[in-house]
Amino acid sequence: MTKGNINVSVENIFPLIKKFLYSDHEIFLRELISNATDATLKLKHLTSIGEAQVEYGNPQIEVKIDKENKTLHIIDQGIGMTADEVEKYINQVAFSGAEEFLEKYKDSAKDSGIIGHFGLGFYSAFMVADKVEILTKSYKDEPAVLWICDGSPQFTLEETDAKQERGTEIILHIAEDSTEFLDEQRILGLLTKYNKFMPVPIKFGSTTQTLPLPEGAPDDAKPETVEVDRIVNNPNPAWTKPPAELNREDYAKFYHELYPMQFEEPLFNIHLNVDYPFNLTGILFFPKLSNNLNIEKDKIQLYQNQVFVTDEVNGIVPDFLMLLRGVIDSPDIPLNVSRSYLQADGAVKKISSYITKKVADKMVSLINENREDYEQKWNDIKIVIEYGMISEEKFFEKSDKFALYPNTEGTYYLWNELEEKIKTAQTDKDGNLVILYATNADAQHSYIETAKERGYEVLLLDSPIVPHLIQKLESAKEKISFARVDADHINNLIKKEDTAISKLKDEEKETLKKSIEETVNDKKFTVQMEDLDSSEALFLITQPEFMRRMKDMQATGGGGMFGMNGFPEMYNLIVNTNSDLASDILNSTDEDAKEMKIKHALDLAKLSQNLLKGKELSDFIARSYQQLSK
Amino acid sequence: MTKGNINVSVENIFPLIKKFLYSDHEIFLRELISNATDATLKLKHLTSIGEAQVEYGNPQIEVKIDKENKTLHIIDQGIGMTADEVEKYINQVAFSGAEEFLEKYKDSAKDSGIIGHFGLGFYSAFMVADKVEILTKSYKDEPAVLWICDGSPQFTLEETDAKQERGTEIILHIAEDSTEFLDEQRILGLLTKYNKFMPVPIKFGSTTQTLPLPEGAPDDAKPETVEVDRIVNNPNPAWTKPPAELNREDYAKFYHELYPMQFEEPLFNIHLNVDYPFNLTGILFFPKLSNNLNIEKDKIQLYQNQVFVTDEVNGIVPDFLMLLRGVIDSPDIPLNVSRSYLQADGAVKKISSYITKKVADKMVSLINENREDYEQKWNDIKIVIEYGMISEEKFFEKSDKFALYPNTEGTYYLWNELEEKIKTAQTDKDGNLVILYATNADAQHSYIETAKERGYEVLLLDSPIVPHLIQKLESAKEKISFARVDADHINNLIKKEDTAISKLKDEEKETLKKSIEETVNDKKFTVQMEDLDSSEALFLITQPEFMRRMKDMQATGGGGMFGMNGFPEMYNLIVNTNSDLASDILNSTDEDAKEMKIKHALDLAKLSQNLLKGKELSDFIARSYQQLSK
Repeated sequence: MTKGNINVSVENIFPLIKKFLYSDHEIFLRELISNATDATLKLKHLTSIGEAQVEYGNPQIEVKIDKENKTLHIIDQGIGMTADEVEKYINQVAFSGAEEFLEKYKDSAKDSGIIGHFGLGFYSAFMVADKVEILTKSYKDEPAVLWICDGSPQFTLEETDAKQERGTEIILHIAEDSTEFLDEQRILGLLTKYNKFMPVPIKFGSTTQTLPLPEGAPDDAKPETVEVDRIVNNPNPAWTKPPAELNREDYAKFYHELYPMQFEEPLFNIHLNVDYPFNLTGILFFPKLSNNLNIEKDKIQLYQNQVFVTDEVNGIVPDFLMLLRGVIDSPDIPLNVSRSYLQADGAVKKISSYITKKVADKMVSLINENREDYEQKWNDIKIVIEYGMISEEKFFEKSDKFALYPNTEGTYYLWNELEEKIKTAQTDKDGNLVILYATNADAQHSYIETAKERGYEVLLLDSPIVPHLIQKLESAKEKISFARVDADHINNLIKKEDTAISKLKDEEKETLKKSIEETVNDKKFTVQMEDLDSSEALFLITQPEFMRRMKDMQATGGGGMFGMNGFPEMYNLIVNTNSDLASDILNSTDEDAKEMKIKHALDLAKLSQNLLKGKELSDFIARSYQQLSK
Repeated sequence: MTKGNINVSVENIFPLIKKFLYSDHEIFLRELISNATDATLKLKHLTSIGEAQVEYGNPQIEVKIDKENKTLHIIDQGIGMTADEVEKYINQVAFSGAEEFLEKYKDSAKDSGIIGHFGLGFYSAFMVADKVEILTKSYKDEPAVLWICDGSPQFTLEETDAKQERGTEIILHIAEDSTEFLDEQRILGLLTKYNKFMPVPIKFGSTTQTLPLPEGAPDDAKPETVEVDRIVNNPNPAWTKPPAELNREDYAKFYHELYPMQFEEPLFNIHLNVDYPFNLTGILFFPKLSNNLNIEKDKIQLYQNQVFVTDEVNGIVPDFLMLLRGVIDSPDIPLNVSRSYLQADGAVKKISSYITKKVADKMVSLINENREDYEQKWNDIKIVIEYGMISEEKFFEKSDKFALYPNTEGTYYLWNELEEKIKTAQTDKDGNLVILYATNADAQHSYIETAKERGYEVLLLDSPIVPHLIQKLESAKEKISFARVDADHINNLIKKEDTAISKLKDEEKETLKKSIEETVNDKKFTVQMEDLDSSEALFLITQPEFMRRMKDMQATGGGGMFGMNGFPEMYNLIVNTNSDLASDILNSTDEDAKEMKIKHALDLAKLSQNLLKGKELSDFIARSYQQLSK
């Protein structure tokens, strides 16, 4: 039996690193700036504990393009490296200096913000450069050194006096196929995407600033302009600060910093801050969703120690909060792992339910602090809340405290307020509480008015997911049911003990029914004879609740019954046997006049349900216009 | 100056491979089966050129779960390895045996279908296993060997007689955090996702098959059942065959093989097959888009040598074809590179324009072969074609040969046919050809009828992207313009040299205009006095083309003018000064009757444009019902 060590040959691994280390080549800049940040934070830590006897000062990281020489420079003022350290940290691929540092200073450096993990980041430079130089001088009193590698695994290392200042300069000789990274706008774009909130100031080029005129300057004095550094990041973003230090304006300012293309204010924010059992900070915003152009683009962003990682946060943030905006920063979220793994991961599950709980708590405090303001925002937030109620049981359980049910007049009820308000009038003879709702105040106007005349409340529930929400509420609560105002005649929607009086005899009803069915002649309509008030119209078109709701549920995805979508629309045509027109038609001997009256009355009923269209509508209009010009 | 070699230490790189080699851990199975396939295809090649003196037979790859021992086995009957070869190919990370093989046999093995590239695939096993064994016997007359590695970089290697048959068995001792890969359904799912069309049969478990009864068997004979191998892949998928060998049924069968949840037939297919300047085979399908449940899920799949890679094909397939389905197989598409790189890559650009050209050619041949059939399919394919016309100039240039313009009666015109048909009637006094269209036959019914009465053709253009298409056509073609039928009175849509006669004097018109404006009292409407035929109605509501089109363009994204979306809807209220009702109103002294007539006539005009809603509609219906029951 042979024993041995598996052998990794650098000749084999190097081409792989160059091509495949990261699927996105642009990542190299994030990696090199992370290294520069770590070098700076390490120095900060060592000076703070007195181990480095140097002035920390106000170090920054500079990024510089040299178009002529086709080089990109990343320069820090951090800890630097001696020749020995270059040997150790650079010449051994995947030996992480950051890990070693954190291990050595584990007690004091826990919160130092040092990013590095795997010691591979530096080599990502070879994805875009065919030669890389490191010019570095340690904070220790040792000469600067220059390391050069042309992408083969061979390097040279020598002392140099080309660098007098402490810190490290990485010089990338950009490869032919990567010249995009010599473009100022491209680099600015990358810095903005990945490094916007990194903790050390990043300088990229300069910008002119106009100085204010000194007091008493003559009227024709020209203001002086100066070149100042262009700092592309904010090293102290709002989420890293304690909530107590931030006011409403600070949050709004941060929102616009995060999403420069968003001109509206966020409705409110939720500041996340937890140490145990996982580390997580962040700020979530409820945006004004209506009229929003960048829903797709401006998503929640995930950071690790202020480095942008991704804006694909499915699995980490519960589904119903995906419409929110903001930032989550956590070192505890595993990256680069498969979706299925992420969903099974215990830490991630806890993060997701922590966020859900925080959102529920925020809603409770918002409605309690200022009910009126909360009601005004309801239309913008309801889709999120309602989706949460459907999809997260814990969220649903708390929702009685913050979910609102508005009526068509703009009065907003909590669930218990609604029950209190309607229980006398809207409990039917079997003791069920019937909640009436409309999905469109315009389209269902006449039905709403009828219900209101009876003294009933009509809720206006117009989110597309309402059929699912109603289904959920009906199954969670006892002895209640929902019915849309046009689901039946109002007498049948909330059945009371009244008995109806009929003007017509049964045979007369049969005759009437027959002639109506013959004239209507449309399978969509089921004729249903009812003894209603004589002042009511001859016809009323209704759409039974169950079928309609199932179809609506299917249309918005999930739920409902499979195949309902292909089902034809079915309506009931309620005939008021007590209406004057009913008697009129029954007693008329003029068949043409009878038919015309039925058709015209039917057209009017169809108009109420937006069912009169095309040729039928054109004919109706022409007929009505003739009447008018007579 | 020091010179040296960068050093990759296996202790550092091994943990990285285990955690981060692929972002998706499930990939390990694809990699190991790719290796097993290569081992088999190498043997096939060596026997075919007479270099291996063994029987090739009908080798298969077996995947086996052993729940008790928590192991997963991948067993092939391929070329196998000697002890020396294990040393060379396994113990050196990232030394690719496939590359070496292809180099050695480069003349004969070019089309052998061998997959491997980087020699890293095997190590992906350590993403899910904490111990891996290789039991392998070469086709050469040498003893079998057993290699074991427990995830540390140490391995053992020894001769064994545990394997008598040629080939390699990989045994994964699945790690605690990866037990999902001991689940039969999970493994079956992975085999179906990644390996469904790989070129060597893959056996996974078995299935029972009922044998037919022998002839003359007694009536009470029970049919015999036997266990047979369950083969999970189709080693010879349709796209690998020459188009001449495939008929319509073969393509349909392959479509359902690819998308088992699609029950409808595809409309037609496009077989891709090109050798130069790049290699690409594949089959694209036009699905029936209406009523389609799996648009999101069933996307075009990208393969490399029959191994599934991804179904994210943006950048490779032109945008307008993203609604298509099917398969593209090409070894020339660079993987794991950034989106921006992909879009700039020359090979990818060529692939994209090759596909565009193939689709255009197919359309031309389809319409020429069977015009009637093509017309019937038009509604299902138009969104793709129209989007292509807007977004790909080359496609637009060819589109006169296959883009159809249907009228409201269901007659389909090619562009030149349409011009021919309408040029006499629809050329206005300035020599512009005006093309009338409707976007909704129901909603614009009365306007369509008016145009048809004049002998004009009205196209029915109802795709959401039509405003963009129209804009494109107007700018590409000379002296034509489009107008929706309700954009103005028909006299104004196509202006002829007629002069209108007016019944009213100018002062009377002023008086009439004033009383109408006072009664209408709505800023949405601009009152426009016109001398029309006396038989026409008093009012006609129109919506000017330009504003409406800009708004529509904005609503469907892109184009239009920024901010148009927030713009209010604006209408023209055309008053027919020659109508009887105009004179009637002008001469009436009963102010109430006058107002009632104007309001009722306006309501009727609003109904034509679907503008009568809510309370206005309820009031109109109540008023009309009263009239009827009088």
